[in-house]
Amino acid sequence: MAIVLGENQYGKAENRLVRIDRDGERHRITDLNVSVSLSGDLADTHLTGDNGKVLATDTQKNTVFAFARDGIGEIEAFGLRLARHFVDSQPSIHRAAVRIESYPWARLEVAGKPAHHSFARSGEGTRTALITYDGERAEVTGGLTDLTVLNSTDSEFWGFPRDEYTTLAEVTDRILATAVSATWRFATAEGADWGKAYETARACLLDAFGGTYSYSLQQTLYAMGTRVLENVPELAEISLSLPNKHHFLSDLSAFGLDNPGEVFFAADRPYGLIEGTVRRDDS
Amino acid sequence: MAIVLGENQYGKAENRLVRIDRDGERHRITDLNVSVSLSGDLADTHLTGDNGKVLATDTQKNTVFAFARDGIGEIEAFGLRLARHFVDSQPSIHRAAVRIESYPWARLEVAGKPAHHSFARSGEGTRTALITYDGERAEVTGGLTDLTVLNSTDSEFWGFPRDEYTTLAEVTDRILATAVSATWRFATAEGADWGKAYETARACLLDAFGGTYSYSLQQTLYAMGTRVLENVPELAEISLSLPNKHHFLSDLSAFGLDNPGEVFFAADRPYGLIEGTVRRDDS
Amino acid sequence: MAIVLGENQYGKAENRLVRIDRDGERHRITDLNVSVSLSGDLADTHLTGDNGKVLATDTQKNTVFAFARDGIGEIEAFGLRLARHFVDSQPSIHRAAVRIESYPWARLEVAGKPAHHSFARSGEGTRTALITYDGERAEVTGGLTDLTVLNSTDSEFWGFPRDEYTTLAEVTDRILATAVSATWRFATAEGADWGKAYETARACLLDAFGGTYSYSLQQTLYAMGTRVLENVPELAEISLSLPNKHHFLSDLSAFGLDNPGEVFFAADRPYGLIEGTVRRDDS
Amino acid sequence: MAIVLGENQYGKAENRLVRIDRDGERHRITDLNVSVSLSGDLADTHLTGDNGKVLATDTQKNTVFAFARDGIGEIEAFGLRLARHFVDSQPSIHRAAVRIESYPWARLEVAGKPAHHSFARSGEGTRTALITYDGERAEVTGGLTDLTVLNSTDSEFWGFPRDEYTTLAEVTDRILATAVSATWRFATAEGADWGKAYETARACLLDAFGGTYSYSLQQTLYAMGTRVLENVPELAEISLSLPNKHHFLSDLSAFGLDNPGEVFFAADRPYGLIEGTVRRDDS
Repeated sequence: MAIVLGENQYGKAENRLVRIDRDGERHRITDLNVSVSLSGDLADTHLTGDNGKVLATDTQKNTVFAFARDGIGEIEAFGLRLARHFVDSQPSIHRAAVRIESYPWARLEVAGKPAHHSFARSGEGTRTALITYDGERAEVTGGLTDLTVLNSTDSEFWGFPRDEYTTLAEVTDRILATAVSATWRFATAEGADWGKAYETARACLLDAFGGTYSYSLQQTLYAMGTRVLENVPELAEISLSLPNKHHFLSDLSAFGLDNPGEVFFAADRPYGLIEGTVRRDDS
Repeated sequence: MAIVLGENQYGKAENRLVRIDRDGERHRITDLNVSVSLSGDLADTHLTGDNGKVLATDTQKNTVFAFARDGIGEIEAFGLRLARHFVDSQPSIHRAAVRIESYPWARLEVAGKPAHHSFARSGEGTRTALITYDGERAEVTGGLTDLTVLNSTDSEFWGFPRDEYTTLAEVTDRILATAVSATWRFATAEGADWGKAYETARACLLDAFGGTYSYSLQQTLYAMGTRVLENVPELAEISLSLPNKHHFLSDLSAFGLDNPGEVFFAADRPYGLIEGTVRRDDS
Repeated sequence: MAIVLGENQYGKAENRLVRIDRDGERHRITDLNVSVSLSGDLADTHLTGDNGKVLATDTQKNTVFAFARDGIGEIEAFGLRLARHFVDSQPSIHRAAVRIESYPWARLEVAGKPAHHSFARSGEGTRTALITYDGERAEVTGGLTDLTVLNSTDSEFWGFPRDEYTTLAEVTDRILATAVSATWRFATAEGADWGKAYETARACLLDAFGGTYSYSLQQTLYAMGTRVLENVPELAEISLSLPNKHHFLSDLSAFGLDNPGEVFFAADRPYGLIEGTVRRDDS
Repeated sequence: MAIVLGENQYGKAENRLVRIDRDGERHRITDLNVSVSLSGDLADTHLTGDNGKVLATDTQKNTVFAFARDGIGEIEAFGLRLARHFVDSQPSIHRAAVRIESYPWARLEVAGKPAHHSFARSGEGTRTALITYDGERAEVTGGLTDLTVLNSTDSEFWGFPRDEYTTLAEVTDRILATAVSATWRFATAEGADWGKAYETARACLLDAFGGTYSYSLQQTLYAMGTRVLENVPELAEISLSLPNKHHFLSDLSAFGLDNPGEVFFAADRPYGLIEGTVRRDDS
């Protein structure tokens, strides 16, 4: 039974690209982490070390920086430009995937006015995109990650089955906290308003998280996903990964103290991990 | 167009389980990170918050620790026990995935003799396993991660295509370094010698990495995968993810110094990322 | 020559304490990482293992959570309460140090209004405090860390000495970026308005960073420190640790492109590290 | 009351230097992280931005790599060479501190023989050094960090005081685990056998950790420090920082199971932190 090469891909990962756009004195900043991955007719280099079809990962890096010279725009569009370039210009490359993280910065106030060229990194989530292109069809996925949110009440958890290993007490008031990672797939790679989709999806995720009276993090997940699809018509589906960041009520009774939902221990591990996809019926 | 629930799963992630086996005075240590993920008939909790079919993630955690009471054995076998338990005991759970990381410890020498109960964590890679079970069929994947290796010569890279963005010089002697992540799928979930497979696969990866005169990291990857499949007949395929940890020769000419392959700068980002699967022809 | 015990301390580190204050329906969140360290008459446990004077670190943890039952208030005040308690209640404990990190959260808007009980973790810096007490005198230090800022222009670096190892070109326009860590010592542990001092110091750091035309990061550091001391009279001194997060202009000339300060590579390592203290003359 | 510049220093941090020594076909690898920090007559750059006395951090980086051209040797000696160079060659620099981390690599076996040029990173602790020089006097500190060790028995903890916040039960058999960070100061910067001191100190730390029947981690700390000083006469003192990595016995009684010291939960935070110095009486 012969041994053969299966699926394979290669590329340059985590190119840390910063672009300053200068509109007169007023600057804007774009801060990206760009990873390229290519696949295609690459058996030779695996089998014999012949690199004649291997576009060097160093070249991929150069391409990312060179393409930024013309402006970046929305990260989904930048990823599409790059993915199409690699496949369309290299006969041996049949598929490109470009993954981008975009770190948010907020404009500082200096001397009481919005600064022209001073920024602070803001931590409220990282915008993400994954663009794939195979020479014919492009697929665009937007998203965000590391958006940590917490409801200090309006969360219950009870009614779950009790087997021989179940010791958990039912609760009717708990903290619900998670770090949202979401990816949303656009129905088409053309014509979407990437930036508006991102802003709307992000706002919907926060609004649905905060506004849902929750009996399980799954219920909250479904509410969040549904809210996004209802408000961003360009999207075909959304996937959410929600770690349940447990906050345990501290038992202070040994010290003669009650604890009516006020003092909590925030645990690191283990954590629940709730993952799910919400989609339009035909997708 | 209706909005519907798609694929979903949930579980308790990163249960940090340590077991001490006591063979008289001589102890052994098993140090694991166990993550459970379940899927099945779980629409209710998403749509209405009814948790009647949701085996609590806290119960999953308890199960992991309770099952360790009888001994852990090889991590693949422990994962199989857990995965089968969740699916076979819970009508609403149709599929279980158990992911395990096993951290290696070495026995210390104390007073010149192997210690009975003293250990040092050794960092030469983490053993991993992923076991899935759907009520009928189990699939077992072993692996390892974070095994960092380096060849200080016998690596070249040249003959790659030069497009308008290519500036990389060809080299006939470079450092080749990577942090190996490998996963290998067993042809069957029954009857394999998990521990021997791991030891043999690990040794093959190291031997093939060190022993391959390399014209590309892809060539090394293929040699590593092939070597493992040739020596572990229970395996159907192996996938490797190899970051190319670049070491750049330091240019000392401005200081009147040559640098015949001696002084290097170890870069963090970006890095190449070479990924591929090697498999038996019929798998 | 005898071997003796020197300085020593012990305690419970990284107690992750979350408190919810409930003002009717409107909640507030305090999210802390509290580390306690005690020293005193502790030779016995080192020399013989007699723990009769060792307040258990588990007890220290319990104390942190129990003290939070009455409310936390400003972290400097909470640290003072804890430090005084340990020293004043335990004859063998002669000095306590309490270190606190406070993670910021922003209130969400839900359905267009500020939410009662929903929050997002905001990443713009972590507030810190270090309180020490020796039975007579308390010292209070406030601070912040992980506040990443960037000026996209108004930064130069030239005129530095050129020795045989100097290759750096002089620049008259560069990106200046850093992650601010600051600690400020209060002249007295009594009577300061901790919260106002923090808000003012933070605003001064940002304003001085953004508003200083910079010839070196040292110059910017001094301007930042001075600005804080000028505006927070309770402070005796401020220390700043500023990594110079290098952004290198990408050389696009090989591709026939200029790069007038627009496309940069953000490097990880190495980085400059500029550290300094600014103080009032008599402190 | 005037505002003045206090203590200050600056330098290039985390220069990732790898050197390959070639002894014919047989190579050796040295893998370092070198941080330089300089102080001296540096008021000008803080007050006016005049950089005439600021040896650029880029120059410091170049110097590190250039000095490696002649060979590195023991890290303490390499740090001394660098520290002396900066102070002795730059009139404005009055003090240099060089901090080095050295990552261990193990030679691979390839085809059953020790490989000429293939290595695996081994994780059993990182060797460290800190060298300072002020133009007259050099001080050398060696050390190690991230050496994680565990005793699965022969550890008790009882007899501690019980105040109103004490709930901890006394135990006569527990796991004792820690990640050792140690620094040892040499009595003189001349003439020590740095490499032998490191090997002996490391072996003593492991032997004393494993061989001490422990009533407290403090007792173990003191035994470890004493053992090192007894066996490395060049050392004046040693400081140890030992996080108590708690392993909690899992309570399986709800499942009808006992747990005679076999199944544990390894906790992340909080952790105990035991720190202490052991020294010769006259130091």
